[in-house]
Amino acid sequence: MTTPIPGLHAIIPAGGAGTRLWPLSRAARPKFLLDLTGTGRTLLQQTVDRLVPLVGVPGITVVAGVRHGAAVVAQLPELPPGAVVHEPSPRDSMPAIALAAAIIARGDPDAVVGSFAADHVVTGDALFADAIGQAVVAARNGDLCTIGITPTHPSVAYGYVEAGDALGLAGAPDAHRVVRFVEKPDAVTATKYVGSGCFWWNAGMFIARADVLLGHLAEHQPRMADGIRAIAEVWETGHRADVLEQVWPTLTKIAIDHALAEPVAAAGAMSVVPGEFGWTDIGDFAALDELLARYAGEGALRVLDGGDNVQAIDAGGLVIAHGDKVVTVIGIPDAVVIDTADALLVTTTGHAQRVRAAAERWRDQGRDDLL
Amino acid sequence: MTTPIPGLHAIIPAGGAGTRLWPLSRAARPKFLLDLTGTGRTLLQQTVDRLVPLVGVPGITVVAGVRHGAAVVAQLPELPPGAVVHEPSPRDSMPAIALAAAIIARGDPDAVVGSFAADHVVTGDALFADAIGQAVVAARNGDLCTIGITPTHPSVAYGYVEAGDALGLAGAPDAHRVVRFVEKPDAVTATKYVGSGCFWWNAGMFIARADVLLGHLAEHQPRMADGIRAIAEVWETGHRADVLEQVWPTLTKIAIDHALAEPVAAAGAMSVVPGEFGWTDIGDFAALDELLARYAGEGALRVLDGGDNVQAIDAGGLVIAHGDKVVTVIGIPDAVVIDTADALLVTTTGHAQRVRAAAERWRDQGRDDLL
Repeated sequence: MTTPIPGLHAIIPAGGAGTRLWPLSRAARPKFLLDLTGTGRTLLQQTVDRLVPLVGVPGITVVAGVRHGAAVVAQLPELPPGAVVHEPSPRDSMPAIALAAAIIARGDPDAVVGSFAADHVVTGDALFADAIGQAVVAARNGDLCTIGITPTHPSVAYGYVEAGDALGLAGAPDAHRVVRFVEKPDAVTATKYVGSGCFWWNAGMFIARADVLLGHLAEHQPRMADGIRAIAEVWETGHRADVLEQVWPTLTKIAIDHALAEPVAAAGAMSVVPGEFGWTDIGDFAALDELLARYAGEGALRVLDGGDNVQAIDAGGLVIAHGDKVVTVIGIPDAVVIDTADALLVTTTGHAQRVRAAAERWRDQGRDDLL
Repeated sequence: MTTPIPGLHAIIPAGGAGTRLWPLSRAARPKFLLDLTGTGRTLLQQTVDRLVPLVGVPGITVVAGVRHGAAVVAQLPELPPGAVVHEPSPRDSMPAIALAAAIIARGDPDAVVGSFAADHVVTGDALFADAIGQAVVAARNGDLCTIGITPTHPSVAYGYVEAGDALGLAGAPDAHRVVRFVEKPDAVTATKYVGSGCFWWNAGMFIARADVLLGHLAEHQPRMADGIRAIAEVWETGHRADVLEQVWPTLTKIAIDHALAEPVAAAGAMSVVPGEFGWTDIGDFAALDELLARYAGEGALRVLDGGDNVQAIDAGGLVIAHGDKVVTVIGIPDAVVIDTADALLVTTTGHAQRVRAAAERWRDQGRDDLL
């Protein structure tokens, strides 16, 4: 059993609704609300399950998007009231994380906060706990710290963190100074990165003392910092709703990566701890197929639902269907077949990155009901 | 306007239920009951529409399979009672055609009967009428006559008829003696056949005087001939049901091709009239895709239902879906996507011939409900 890390709080932004797993994920039912691994637990539930041993149940704060609040609360009955912060509208991750950090800091001025996406898959809990433990040491030392995922291949689907010198911190032997963050590279660059041994995948996990995080915010996004402070001050009062309604829409819509991680790294105040644990953001159906391959074995058709109802003849890939419907796939070795009540997607893992464009085309045709 | 050909009767066996267009066609809803061309008329209705100008409404006899009788009658309200003969159980095409011929012969001893499949597509009515007219001349001359389709390509999906000398019949200038029937050839053989100019596709159309046809039956299938005669004798009496029930199950289950066409050709009593009209038996989804290409143009996705609900990104082929469901196909240039309420098929036109095996696998798994 892992012992909770004193003073550590976990923030889980659960508001995004991408279209890369459309039509499986929808705006009203994004992937963190789905069980994508066939374990019986949704990605959000798995995220909480993974973090509770490190922060305890009282250490969890989920920031739920406006369309998902009720579903988030329903999926996490173990959390006390107040553990779910409801954002009035989507403003990307920075306002959500900052608000949660400000609320946590009012209750625990010495808190260290870690932000973790609600829709990633992690395997290897002990390795995860070790990395977080080292990151907390770096955070206590004043850094904004991120976890860098050891690349298993030269992925072009992820951004990278370039590591510099080791910090030489007691209790954080693997922590390094961050040189820079880089966006998704091309294949040649990715191969160079992975070969160098100095680049890790950016998994969007950030750990810092709450006061440090909010200090960086005041420096790089001063207007947002003012707004967050105003909201947090009245959070436990009857003015919460009024102030939220007034201030929240004025906050800049920006991700923490761009708002803080990049400028703080440029200023030399960012560190990275490499994580050897398994990780994926399930960024498209090819990634989901790869994830499920760990259960099903190579070459097989991965089936997330109704396995007896799927028949493959010289076919492989991923089939997701529901209910009693049978699916037959013939002669497509890398098929992706996603069947839902109102939308059917047929493609291959090689074209998985184009699913977003397909969803957007439906939107362009006025079919918002499908998103 | 075509004038009906005196004494010609059309027999339309409508009993088969193949699995090559599964899951679109089902045992209870075979392809002749479906509108596969988007014209608003089913293949059975189109078959009747094509033959009525040649034989008149009273000249149509449909032999309906036991599971399809009600649907056949419902689709053909223009036919008088008695025009639909209901077989008690499927015995392939020979007993069905022989019974219809025997019933017709009792009413018109000089009748010429022509047998035409209920689920083929013909284009070019004038050319069709001309070929049938010549075939009737050959039939009046005592031949069992077939229509040979002029091959458009060296198909391996069809059987072939090899033609010998021209008959030199007045009124049937294109009629030739049949040398032999050959089963579906391999690609090399098919190319040789088509290059020779002496081979036509066997479209399963047979025209003969009813007494000639029944005479050949008596010679090659004497027990069946006895049984058919026994049934026909009581057809208009109160004993029909009893005799049918007693005799029908004893009749050999055999196609007219094997029961009559092959032995009669071997005996030199078979002729063939080439047909220049367009013809397909829609033997698989590749053939359906090709058929619909005439309407939709090359390279496009052919959509049989809900065109606005289908989106293709670098994709082509065939999509059949129903209702309001949207279908998105990405990156598969020759896709076949057949979506029904209880079964979804995903394959490519190149694998269309394997659909039958897929349907049979479901049967092997005890899923007769899907067939």
